[in-house]
Amino acid sequence: MSLGRKLKYGMVGGGPDAFIGGVHRIAAAIDGQTELVAGAFSSDPRKSRQQGEVLFLDPSRVYGSYEEMAQKEAALPEGERIDFVSIVTPNHMHFPVARTFIEAGFNVICDKPMTRTVEEAEELVRLVKKHDVVFALTHNYTGYPMVKQARALVKDGKIGTIRKVVVEYPQGWLATPQDAAGQKQAAWRTDPARAGVSSCVGDIGSHAENLARYITGLEMESILADMTTFVEGRRLEDDANLLVQYKGGARGVLWASQVAVGEENHLVIRIYGETGRLEWDQEDPNYLWFQVDGEPLQKWTRGSDYVGPDAAAHSRIPSGHPEGYLEGFANIYRNACAAMAAKITGETADPSRDFPTVEDGAIGVHFIHKAVESGQRRAWIDASYSPPA
Amino acid sequence: MSLGRKLKYGMVGGGPDAFIGGVHRIAAAIDGQTELVAGAFSSDPRKSRQQGEVLFLDPSRVYGSYEEMAQKEAALPEGERIDFVSIVTPNHMHFPVARTFIEAGFNVICDKPMTRTVEEAEELVRLVKKHDVVFALTHNYTGYPMVKQARALVKDGKIGTIRKVVVEYPQGWLATPQDAAGQKQAAWRTDPARAGVSSCVGDIGSHAENLARYITGLEMESILADMTTFVEGRRLEDDANLLVQYKGGARGVLWASQVAVGEENHLVIRIYGETGRLEWDQEDPNYLWFQVDGEPLQKWTRGSDYVGPDAAAHSRIPSGHPEGYLEGFANIYRNACAAMAAKITGETADPSRDFPTVEDGAIGVHFIHKAVESGQRRAWIDASYSPPA
Amino acid sequence: MSLGRKLKYGMVGGGPDAFIGGVHRIAAAIDGQTELVAGAFSSDPRKSRQQGEVLFLDPSRVYGSYEEMAQKEAALPEGERIDFVSIVTPNHMHFPVARTFIEAGFNVICDKPMTRTVEEAEELVRLVKKHDVVFALTHNYTGYPMVKQARALVKDGKIGTIRKVVVEYPQGWLATPQDAAGQKQAAWRTDPARAGVSSCVGDIGSHAENLARYITGLEMESILADMTTFVEGRRLEDDANLLVQYKGGARGVLWASQVAVGEENHLVIRIYGETGRLEWDQEDPNYLWFQVDGEPLQKWTRGSDYVGPDAAAHSRIPSGHPEGYLEGFANIYRNACAAMAAKITGETADPSRDFPTVEDGAIGVHFIHKAVESGQRRAWIDASYSPPA
Amino acid sequence: MSLGRKLKYGMVGGGPDAFIGGVHRIAAAIDGQTELVAGAFSSDPRKSRQQGEVLFLDPSRVYGSYEEMAQKEAALPEGERIDFVSIVTPNHMHFPVARTFIEAGFNVICDKPMTRTVEEAEELVRLVKKHDVVFALTHNYTGYPMVKQARALVKDGKIGTIRKVVVEYPQGWLATPQDAAGQKQAAWRTDPARAGVSSCVGDIGSHAENLARYITGLEMESILADMTTFVEGRRLEDDANLLVQYKGGARGVLWASQVAVGEENHLVIRIYGETGRLEWDQEDPNYLWFQVDGEPLQKWTRGSDYVGPDAAAHSRIPSGHPEGYLEGFANIYRNACAAMAAKITGETADPSRDFPTVEDGAIGVHFIHKAVESGQRRAWIDASYSPPA
Repeated sequence: MSLGRKLKYGMVGGGPDAFIGGVHRIAAAIDGQTELVAGAFSSDPRKSRQQGEVLFLDPSRVYGSYEEMAQKEAALPEGERIDFVSIVTPNHMHFPVARTFIEAGFNVICDKPMTRTVEEAEELVRLVKKHDVVFALTHNYTGYPMVKQARALVKDGKIGTIRKVVVEYPQGWLATPQDAAGQKQAAWRTDPARAGVSSCVGDIGSHAENLARYITGLEMESILADMTTFVEGRRLEDDANLLVQYKGGARGVLWASQVAVGEENHLVIRIYGETGRLEWDQEDPNYLWFQVDGEPLQKWTRGSDYVGPDAAAHSRIPSGHPEGYLEGFANIYRNACAAMAAKITGETADPSRDFPTVEDGAIGVHFIHKAVESGQRRAWIDASYSPPA
Repeated sequence: MSLGRKLKYGMVGGGPDAFIGGVHRIAAAIDGQTELVAGAFSSDPRKSRQQGEVLFLDPSRVYGSYEEMAQKEAALPEGERIDFVSIVTPNHMHFPVARTFIEAGFNVICDKPMTRTVEEAEELVRLVKKHDVVFALTHNYTGYPMVKQARALVKDGKIGTIRKVVVEYPQGWLATPQDAAGQKQAAWRTDPARAGVSSCVGDIGSHAENLARYITGLEMESILADMTTFVEGRRLEDDANLLVQYKGGARGVLWASQVAVGEENHLVIRIYGETGRLEWDQEDPNYLWFQVDGEPLQKWTRGSDYVGPDAAAHSRIPSGHPEGYLEGFANIYRNACAAMAAKITGETADPSRDFPTVEDGAIGVHFIHKAVESGQRRAWIDASYSPPA
Repeated sequence: MSLGRKLKYGMVGGGPDAFIGGVHRIAAAIDGQTELVAGAFSSDPRKSRQQGEVLFLDPSRVYGSYEEMAQKEAALPEGERIDFVSIVTPNHMHFPVARTFIEAGFNVICDKPMTRTVEEAEELVRLVKKHDVVFALTHNYTGYPMVKQARALVKDGKIGTIRKVVVEYPQGWLATPQDAAGQKQAAWRTDPARAGVSSCVGDIGSHAENLARYITGLEMESILADMTTFVEGRRLEDDANLLVQYKGGARGVLWASQVAVGEENHLVIRIYGETGRLEWDQEDPNYLWFQVDGEPLQKWTRGSDYVGPDAAAHSRIPSGHPEGYLEGFANIYRNACAAMAAKITGETADPSRDFPTVEDGAIGVHFIHKAVESGQRRAWIDASYSPPA
Repeated sequence: MSLGRKLKYGMVGGGPDAFIGGVHRIAAAIDGQTELVAGAFSSDPRKSRQQGEVLFLDPSRVYGSYEEMAQKEAALPEGERIDFVSIVTPNHMHFPVARTFIEAGFNVICDKPMTRTVEEAEELVRLVKKHDVVFALTHNYTGYPMVKQARALVKDGKIGTIRKVVVEYPQGWLATPQDAAGQKQAAWRTDPARAGVSSCVGDIGSHAENLARYITGLEMESILADMTTFVEGRRLEDDANLLVQYKGGARGVLWASQVAVGEENHLVIRIYGETGRLEWDQEDPNYLWFQVDGEPLQKWTRGSDYVGPDAAAHSRIPSGHPEGYLEGFANIYRNACAAMAAKITGETADPSRDFPTVEDGAIGVHFIHKAVESGQRRAWIDASYSPPA
């Protein structure tokens, strides 16, 4: 990237009580390639101002609404106005905010799931194409170096044709009715108006889907979902078990839970091929377990000489010096920023510096809806996705 | 047990090439409470004799057939004749051999799955009742001390009402067509004539079912199974993924595989209740992970002062001195032998010295058939079991 | 911190080939509280300029030498000039650079070990006091939240009087003569002129000493060291085993190695008290193992509700979202910056936001020299440290 | 072994309250190759009789003293009298009992440490040679299959010339004054009259010494020991830290503790060579960690196709079916029995079926005394062992 300056960005959402806004800001800061210069941090202007002060922003660029922000930033001269916007609101705002900024010509980094409906998702796909902007979705788990290594090993045929994928994502933080008790993070995630049709699959099952697809390249053919709401009074499911039949014959188990007491953020994927297997655990992310049939299990470690170029390029410090969630998240930012910088300078972005795209987002939203449908029908259903013509 | 002598037993199956016969013999020997005195080790009389020699048996008690053995042993005076028979043949022989010995009045320790059909299973239930013999099925994994501890914690309400059970049993030894290549263990397990209607669920999925039921006490209401045969030419499924709905509302994921490359015997169960969770891994069996919501995860260790009486009674050596598969298996033998001794002396057996019964066997065989049926119908089906009147 | 602006800093060292400079820059950036505005990145002015460009610095503040930087920055108006300097050079430059900036009235964040000699170390102690500046030494491992939790548990008496401390720090990267082969990181660390009297104890053993002292509060009384150079031609030891007798009767084992093939950065500490124990592993830093005698081992996890205020205050994201080396390192920066901001605003810094001080640095350098002395004399020697009057 | 019958044995010690006697009996029983026929289980004849009954022994062969047992058994006809004696008494009785049985021409399996003094140990070496009997010492940890695999990898040069050995053996059961409280196992182990000159090094440190020597083949040149008694009133040390310099230049750390609260039986060895490393943990004994410099860490698993013949020959069940302490212990019995059977039949015993010998015992006792001496002198001392001419 020879842009010669930091990329400027603004944030929508991420006010004082939010969790994911802070994560995005750290992810953006880690590599010293971005500068936060604007924000509409809350629908409450006082809170937005407060947050702007905490972040040392020029008050003239702390806005009362995202519409105002899009309009006023677009009016600033190039080089001064933001290069991209980070959208870190609850789900229901992703679409209107993203549409507004895309239509104003801004690049977008958006939290997941992308939208509440498939229609909105496909509308964003069209808009991104039409306005030729960079759009990155923060399915952050694909930013981990050893996830990239897993993908490379699959691509290189090191485990043979895949037979079985087991991906699980248990959390326990919603085991009690925190949402009813007013915990903010819990409240919106279980509110259909803000979260969409699903809580558990929408919030975390979609990460599992994205991770499995990223590593294996497999596309779902049919799914069977069992969706359960365990906590009384909750309006969306807090537990989901799915069986998957992939195109080409592989089989899958995908389960997620928000009521798995004691579990924290335990996204784990295991992939069994004809000649080898892989296992990766988000809570121990610096390692990838790889085994060839008949040989000892191997512990691959991030930063080692034997890892491939994709993992190496997404790692900042030597092996044994653990990287974590924030560094993985930062890789999504770094790659999206590289794509933006390349767009500005007219260069071609390095395709190995990938990040989840608007199309990934649409597949994810489609998956969420199919899971809900299968759960309601108690039957196997077609889950294949065809993008609109 | 005040019987004042070792229990004498004979073995059917367990010839020179068998795996599980040797396991049963060690399990029987560990506590010094039994003596192997007779056998029909193979349908090939030469092999049977050979095995008898290796085991230092009196040649007059090494028989050419199980029928001969049952008849001649029954004719020996009490105290000299066998107290019980161990049946360690391929599945299809369990029923005829068990029936023969039960009808001759002998106690039985039988390998699993109990029979090939539900009808046979229920016939054994009737016969055991009618002839009033002790019948133990070697679902050996319930013999592990920390499995008993898990059961005790559930019973004591330490994790609250159970919401979710995830039990998995991956193996990788059938990832390649070893059966076609003539490997004996593989060949019979994938042969419908000898194994029954199922390979993967029959051989290992049934252990998972038994383990989950033993610890949780939950009964299945409905299941949905996806059964796959990955290795070309194999006649029974080598992979199975199931969703379970338990009576009372708990949900389950149960999967097993014989083609999970690199996996050895990786039976793992995780149980999430309203207020706590448990996890146990057969490959690391001396530990039980227990967590109460909001508190740190605890590593309970076999042989510790804080484990309850059930775990303590099934443990032989102090914590830190690992016990394994054979000791767990030996607990099934020890408990079954205690029941037999109690029967002989007219005492009441200690109910905490439990072992899988003929009724457990019938439930297991029913489960296997329901899994096959659901897989064929690609639908949720009723999987509840009602014993015949 | 109500300073209302980011702290400005400059860097000495940290040129294109350096490792630790990049770490310091990320650590400084993570919390959005600092801004890199100046640097003397290399003794080669061309390399310094290059690095300045990569970091988007104003070329007028990229200096050819640290002396120039100290002088010119001091001449800038307050608010524009740097608030502190980060010193990330090889060891031999720590002292002259630190002295220069301290004497010019700047706060300092300095890499470890602090100096090559005890005399230099004690001179820095005097200068820091005299010029009343903030001085932080990046013994970064004490920045990890679960290290702070360990310290709190010890202080709260949760493991009773400490009996035994086992701290080990194996690395394997110098198992072959990389230094002779010209690898830059290896070359200076094994060069007495640049590293000082010790390689293994200086570079990593000193971290182990600092970590043990931070958590336990114990002071060394006597040590016995066995120092070995395994790689032929190397001029400093690459392996060190020490026994420790602490004041008050506790005993210790402290070993470090740079030739432990396969090991990465495996700093582990285990502490046994009269009533409990603790274990922490730098390669799995989000967890702390804690056990009370007679109770199950507990896995404490960063970000949980039950961790104390010190760990909580040094954690950025929820449990299950792993933090790593960079976040721990960033805690040293954040706390040192808080102390600097407090100094500027005239507030009192929060003492729980601690960081390794110049006095810690002097104790560390003293320890390194005592280890070398004991190794040479092959005897127990007095290792207690008394600061100069 | 074509002996055609089980080996008969008697036991000295192993009464109702003993721990290790039961372990020996299980170890002897597992493979169905031995038969317990005689015993002097306690110096209290009533307890000895009681134990005989529990074990279903012929009362005429339950003796009131070991002298009586040796005499009367020797008088029985060959084939009826015992083939060997198992000595499982407290340490101080090992020597007189062993001497008595050896002089009566019996083979011996003896618990460790072999004797209380070096003189006694060397006397046993002479007697074993003179009477040409088989003598096995139950340093049982070398019976584990993956320990044998480790040894094979070292022998085959897979980790290169060894540079460093770290072996540790923490236990926590003596953290409180259980000995003073009358706990029988604790009482004799800390009583100089029964245990000898050392508690911690004698009981467990000697296992660590034996394990390290078995795997590496290294001989000690010098040691430095720090021996501590933490529990007030205890008469022998309960904690020991040693540094080791091996012949040829390798270095070692060997530490053991009986007051490491929470630890169970945590014998761990790590070996670093010029080109690779090994790690084995007794509490997770089915796995061996092996790494070649620059390659991923490998988890070798007992029972796999890739393990060598020595590990394979000492394994009974497939990988994934955990074996434990008792099976490892049983390997010592099986191999010693094979040597005895070979002696009876005049065959040559297979040297790969090894077991710790009387010479190993003498080296161990010598090591214990040298540790005590170094601790007292607070100095490096010569620890090399030369057997008497």
